[in-house]
Amino acid sequence: MTSIAVLGFGIVGSGVVEVLKKNGENIAKKAGDTIKVKHILDIRDFPDFPDKNIITKNSEDIFNDSDVSIVVETIGGIGVAYEFTKRALSAGKSVVTSNKELVATHGPELMRIAKEKNVHYKFEASVGGGIPIIKPLYECLSANEITSIAGILNGTTNYILTSMANEGKDFETALKDAQTKGYAEANPSDDIQGKDSCRKIAILSSISFGQYVNYSEIPTEGITKITVEDLKIAELLNCKIKLLGFSRKENGKIFAKVCPSLIDKSNALANVEDVFNAILVSGDSIGDVMFYGRGAGKLPTASAVVNDVIDVVKYSDLDSMQVWDVSSESNFIQPENTNARYFVRLKVRSMEEAKKYVFDCFGKIDFYELAEYPDQLMFKTLTENESEIIKKIQALQNIGSVRNVQTSLRIFE
Amino acid sequence: MTSIAVLGFGIVGSGVVEVLKKNGENIAKKAGDTIKVKHILDIRDFPDFPDKNIITKNSEDIFNDSDVSIVVETIGGIGVAYEFTKRALSAGKSVVTSNKELVATHGPELMRIAKEKNVHYKFEASVGGGIPIIKPLYECLSANEITSIAGILNGTTNYILTSMANEGKDFETALKDAQTKGYAEANPSDDIQGKDSCRKIAILSSISFGQYVNYSEIPTEGITKITVEDLKIAELLNCKIKLLGFSRKENGKIFAKVCPSLIDKSNALANVEDVFNAILVSGDSIGDVMFYGRGAGKLPTASAVVNDVIDVVKYSDLDSMQVWDVSSESNFIQPENTNARYFVRLKVRSMEEAKKYVFDCFGKIDFYELAEYPDQLMFKTLTENESEIIKKIQALQNIGSVRNVQTSLRIFE
Repeated sequence: MTSIAVLGFGIVGSGVVEVLKKNGENIAKKAGDTIKVKHILDIRDFPDFPDKNIITKNSEDIFNDSDVSIVVETIGGIGVAYEFTKRALSAGKSVVTSNKELVATHGPELMRIAKEKNVHYKFEASVGGGIPIIKPLYECLSANEITSIAGILNGTTNYILTSMANEGKDFETALKDAQTKGYAEANPSDDIQGKDSCRKIAILSSISFGQYVNYSEIPTEGITKITVEDLKIAELLNCKIKLLGFSRKENGKIFAKVCPSLIDKSNALANVEDVFNAILVSGDSIGDVMFYGRGAGKLPTASAVVNDVIDVVKYSDLDSMQVWDVSSESNFIQPENTNARYFVRLKVRSMEEAKKYVFDCFGKIDFYELAEYPDQLMFKTLTENESEIIKKIQALQNIGSVRNVQTSLRIFE
Repeated sequence: MTSIAVLGFGIVGSGVVEVLKKNGENIAKKAGDTIKVKHILDIRDFPDFPDKNIITKNSEDIFNDSDVSIVVETIGGIGVAYEFTKRALSAGKSVVTSNKELVATHGPELMRIAKEKNVHYKFEASVGGGIPIIKPLYECLSANEITSIAGILNGTTNYILTSMANEGKDFETALKDAQTKGYAEANPSDDIQGKDSCRKIAILSSISFGQYVNYSEIPTEGITKITVEDLKIAELLNCKIKLLGFSRKENGKIFAKVCPSLIDKSNALANVEDVFNAILVSGDSIGDVMFYGRGAGKLPTASAVVNDVIDVVKYSDLDSMQVWDVSSESNFIQPENTNARYFVRLKVRSMEEAKKYVFDCFGKIDFYELAEYPDQLMFKTLTENESEIIKKIQALQNIGSVRNVQTSLRIFE
């Protein structure tokens, strides 16, 4: 029998206990051993929980119990979760977590401690909820050099964008609706400002490119400026607007970014709607593969945690465990050194003058003319240096023939 | 160093050699050992291949070489591939294959031999080309009871249906076009009659439900009867028609089927176009997850084979290797014991009389009326016993008010 402890009896933690109970027999068969939850750590009381006697408020009950070989950390954040993870690993216990913030922030240190102590630090549930993505990246695409990765990594923002696009709700209404349905937290800022997606693309990039990608260096923009008109016009251009996290490796360095992006509907990511997440991975042999599913939720996330627990029980082999290298200098390609294309939408005072200016400034581009928006000039830039494009777009604000820049959106291709 | 032999130097076999060469350094790092192709078996000559000296026409060179620990079988079919696989496994060599026909036909026997000899028999590339699906099913969803699985498993037929739908080509023209582009073989019957999809859903079902699902028992229908009109009308109903293989477990028994199916566009499978494949897996905790990518092609398929080779090198642990149980009696739910819904399209002589008959016969169903097709009556049946529905649809042929049954399509929900 393998005894485990669950730290934090919230949504995911209680889901882990539920899944282990519900599918215990089958899980034991797959793990080759029965898995028993011996302790649950939480500062709260749970008078209605039938196994009350296993709940403790004292973490020493867990760290001092040599019987516990695996600790599930579902506390979240980088405070006490960090301390407890270090203590557990240092005590020779494997740790399984859903805590993306902790992995993105202290992953390299925690992996190093795990390696030294010959135990596991596993975090499948930290990205994409129940979608298998971290193990496939480590173990199913080994014949490939991964060239790029892009994903819809946050269910809350994808739900908001979907309901704005399909039901014409404005951002505030769509956000409130998401909160009512439990898809957005009371304080939604990590989601809507793109921070959650940023941590996740940092984790996926670190795995794909074999070196730690520091999330704080990734340029990140949320969805708060997206309007219903943006989404309507995207639709008319046979596109969608999605909050994407993406990264690619070029000449040994990494480019990563999180921003709302214009995607043609022929791209598989464009059709990922509501709270669903999807991750598109490109390899030099495999081409594009996509992993799709619910990116959050109690049982999907818990099932990813439990799968990691099963792996720890089943595989004693730790040789292949990766520790992300931390470069002494930045391994990032700075935005001024990358190319991109943008979609730009202007309200104009004089269509002809504005067109002439844009043409002189942006080169041989095609204009989009939509009968519904006669006073708007829309175009896609050519592929060129991203900083240059942004400067030129900003400069449009000061042109007499242009009333204002309504939107500028990076095009994902 | 690990020495391997490649049996069959066709598209996939040569792709395996290419991928091992191209990404050799990285593959060695991931496998923990250098992988060297020591022999290639093929009856043909390859005068332009630079490593001609490793090509042999004599299989004994491989089976008698104790240095070779892994054999890659990319011959295909169930003749010599079956004999060679048995010989290799019996000689204590692990076998990695892309041969779905062999796995679907003799999988249980070959797995048993592998287990007895303490070697691997691995076949990730047999389903979905490069898409990681077999390893994720075995190792990433262990916390779940898998309840159902459905997939677009054949790129050729998906390409044909996509070009019929988008470009209005009839079946024969779309097939010829697919042949010209190399997406369909000169003899396309295994693809267009659904046999290829049938073997693949049999393999996926055997893994998901832990017991051998004999493909010859799966009712299988191809796409040869689908017309451009069917696809146009599906579009008007906000649906797509896709060739699906699907299965589910109910009360310990298995229901599986391959047939062209009507899918609402809100289902992620509906948006899988061209030669792409996708597999939707439902688990009791995870909900739906989908795996998407190129289901065929030299390098994607080869990269799945090489990934299996890396796994054999890396993991000596064979405890978790599954051998599919073969039931002494059929483990199938017979079609007469399942429920379904159908979409039916009739050409009628008298709309009112036909409507009355259909209503009396099929119960309180809703009719679809499309201005473009004034002489056609269309409806979706209620969910009821599938054999009964089929009998009732057949009976419609003999009703005076009905000219003929244009289409009856199972609805995938």
